[in-house]
Amino acid sequence: MNKWKEITEQIKAKSDIVIMTHTNMDGDAIGSASALCHALRYLGKRCVILLEDDIPYYLKFMHDHSNGGSDALPFFVYEMPYTPQLAIAVDCGDEYRIEKRLDIYRSCDTTICLDHHMQKGGFADLSVVDPKASATGLLVYQLINELKVPIDKEIAEDLFVAIMTDTGCFRYSNTTAECHLVAAELYKAGIEFDKLGTLIYDTVPLSQMKLESLIIQWMDLFEDGRAAVSYVTQEKLRELGATYDMTGSCIDVLRKIDTVEICAFLKESEDGSIKLSLRSKGKSDVLGIAQKLGGGGHPKASGGTLHVPIEEALSLVKKAISEELAR
Amino acid sequence: MNKWKEITEQIKAKSDIVIMTHTNMDGDAIGSASALCHALRYLGKRCVILLEDDIPYYLKFMHDHSNGGSDALPFFVYEMPYTPQLAIAVDCGDEYRIEKRLDIYRSCDTTICLDHHMQKGGFADLSVVDPKASATGLLVYQLINELKVPIDKEIAEDLFVAIMTDTGCFRYSNTTAECHLVAAELYKAGIEFDKLGTLIYDTVPLSQMKLESLIIQWMDLFEDGRAAVSYVTQEKLRELGATYDMTGSCIDVLRKIDTVEICAFLKESEDGSIKLSLRSKGKSDVLGIAQKLGGGGHPKASGGTLHVPIEEALSLVKKAISEELAR
Repeated sequence: MNKWKEITEQIKAKSDIVIMTHTNMDGDAIGSASALCHALRYLGKRCVILLEDDIPYYLKFMHDHSNGGSDALPFFVYEMPYTPQLAIAVDCGDEYRIEKRLDIYRSCDTTICLDHHMQKGGFADLSVVDPKASATGLLVYQLINELKVPIDKEIAEDLFVAIMTDTGCFRYSNTTAECHLVAAELYKAGIEFDKLGTLIYDTVPLSQMKLESLIIQWMDLFEDGRAAVSYVTQEKLRELGATYDMTGSCIDVLRKIDTVEICAFLKESEDGSIKLSLRSKGKSDVLGIAQKLGGGGHPKASGGTLHVPIEEALSLVKKAISEELAR
Repeated sequence: MNKWKEITEQIKAKSDIVIMTHTNMDGDAIGSASALCHALRYLGKRCVILLEDDIPYYLKFMHDHSNGGSDALPFFVYEMPYTPQLAIAVDCGDEYRIEKRLDIYRSCDTTICLDHHMQKGGFADLSVVDPKASATGLLVYQLINELKVPIDKEIAEDLFVAIMTDTGCFRYSNTTAECHLVAAELYKAGIEFDKLGTLIYDTVPLSQMKLESLIIQWMDLFEDGRAAVSYVTQEKLRELGATYDMTGSCIDVLRKIDTVEICAFLKESEDGSIKLSLRSKGKSDVLGIAQKLGGGGHPKASGGTLHVPIEEALSLVKKAISEELAR
């Protein structure tokens, strides 16, 4: 692909580079950015990853991981320590996901984008956008190979985290044979895949464990077990010491129950509004339910925001689910 | 390897075959047996898998899966419908794990064993025992290739389940690059890896979800969060409608808590004795704790049986854990 040649030429021509990734970072975002930063520093470039929001709690170890070593500059920064000539956006499909960094992004001579999201319109001089790629980590893997940078243990672990997290540990339907082939290649660098798996999937804060336990206690199972609804209030989150990002796993707890076809999780936001998540495991369409309640999404995963008290929201959601299951 | 040639020759020479696997079956046992049964039937052999205990609840779908099709004989049987000439033991390192089937096993003209456990002494005429193999499924994969049987979707899904479950979804330290390379090969047969992952990891009976929720409610976290102990009684299991095999996941729930170094789970058996499981995530040695209480195991995973009331058992275990953490 000629695009790769243009991109590697631009990288070779520039000495001061900045990497950016989308806000509300996940493992693919951090892993892809970090692997690329490692590779560019190997080539002698000055390079940092500029952030505008926090690394989520379950990926904090990636920060330690990538700040190790004797480099004078940290990998992750909130302010640019130099003026970059080249900006590379990874795993980012939209300018608004690097909103507070746009000035710096636009000030660069050249911009590059590597991404696997569906993009409405490009926002870089040179883009490789492949919605069929399971993870942006796979595109970064290809770029690093094009740059002829050897894949050491640190780069390999970053890329492994990117691929593992975006495929749900090789379980989501977006997983491809390529993910497994690249994983096998990354093993050659001596990655501690078991340690990474434990850190990402089997290391949970006590407050999150308590939250997940509470979700089951407060759950309302109805329609002969075909539907499950649960919720959490701001007061309870504070009592448990749980942060808002820990609520992300709650809908999956409900979804696991074998008899459940539709599940909903409601969380009270700080402003009192109710964030609704809906999932369907069967033939049911939860997009219709979300739309009825002013939300949107996909047939199997949808959501919305309700501006009523939590009790009323629960009652509205239950009614809409029962109607969908009766269809 | 010459052993493979001898094994394929024996298989080709025999028409009526029985496959056996270890009691207390797991995904590698069932997946390996089922894949091999498919392959042998493809070669025109009469073949069944003889069982002596139940398929565990989370693998019941493998039973449906492999009994599909138009074969007159089911895959899994509890009594032999014919007299076999050849017995093949898969994922079984010891005669005592096919104890109730030993007469039939020994009555065969030839016996073969494919296994990845450390074996004390062989118990088959022809054995391939490779403790370095991540799963017996990898050995069955090789045998099927040696037999030149094409790997169709059903065989591929059975082998995928075998490899996925024995490596903890490619996360345990026994995972190898080979597991990923074989997975990539199995994708070519169009396996529904996402459906299999959901069935095995994300389909949990309500009673088990309630049990896991309870474990956190009843948990005693002590030594500044470094130790966690929880338990379940027979009365509570009955109230939740949970079966004894559902308690298997409870120790892992405790183990996930980020601050926990040592955890213990106690379950009351029907005879009133207390089954103890112990795990260490850090440097602590839980073998010493188990030995103090009359049990055994390994430094990171141990257990035992206590013949005292549950309250007394909890107190004994907590004391022993505190002593270990104070060392």
